[in-house]
Amino acid sequence: MTRDADCIFCKIITGEIPSLKLLETERILAFMDINPFHDGHCMVIPKAHSETIFACEEEDLAACIKAVRTVATALRDALEPDGINIIQSNGTAAGQSIAHFHMHIFPRKVGDEAMMNWDYKPAEMDHLKDVHARILAALW
Amino acid sequence: MTRDADCIFCKIITGEIPSLKLLETERILAFMDINPFHDGHCMVIPKAHSETIFACEEEDLAACIKAVRTVATALRDALEPDGINIIQSNGTAAGQSIAHFHMHIFPRKVGDEAMMNWDYKPAEMDHLKDVHARILAALW
Repeated sequence: MTRDADCIFCKIITGEIPSLKLLETERILAFMDINPFHDGHCMVIPKAHSETIFACEEEDLAACIKAVRTVATALRDALEPDGINIIQSNGTAAGQSIAHFHMHIFPRKVGDEAMMNWDYKPAEMDHLKDVHARILAALW
Repeated sequence: MTRDADCIFCKIITGEIPSLKLLETERILAFMDINPFHDGHCMVIPKAHSETIFACEEEDLAACIKAVRTVATALRDALEPDGINIIQSNGTAAGQSIAHFHMHIFPRKVGDEAMMNWDYKPAEMDHLKDVHARILAALW
């Protein structure tokens, strides 16, 4: 199992740092966020250390999203939030503060100030097609 | 395959509504968001209709997150954004506007106004333990 000796989430996995665990399997750990935006804010991480989604193994991604669904369902049933976002951030510009892949399970309340939404601005179609072509060129 | 006759994403899957496709498999479709927050904003959806993560089949979730990693990597290589968020919303209170499970691949720029982040407010530990216990009770 890949570990990073300086990673706070790797230390939570080994138990060196305590956590309020929700679910643990061979591949993943789910635990409460100690800086919750709302009650029930928790996260799922793979036990193998990778910084971002780009380096995370496919099996770990699958295990994480499965655990996210399981924990989010329990959170919904237990706390009945108005909505739930799943948020995963790659890079400090995206708000990532811990360099170990993690998926936030983020309860929402009507009228909260999470501002996770964005205004709809229709794209200029020729520009959108150009962007599309550039991503396709990198994809195939 | 489960379809909803009134669902805009189901119509994109069948081709009734056109889209700029990036990746298509038996289970998923990735395509450009026509209301992009930044260049490269796109999404991955399962072909089987389900409204939220709670009802989405495990195999579809795994296929979606795998495709998210593939497309996000291409987007990163093609457009070099400062960061990338993966965002999935359940319920209108969470910002969900189309009632068909979808995962946004959301490029970020330093200093943009996405405000996807939130202030860190340490939890009161007894309260956090109570919330933890309530979710655990629903989980097991």
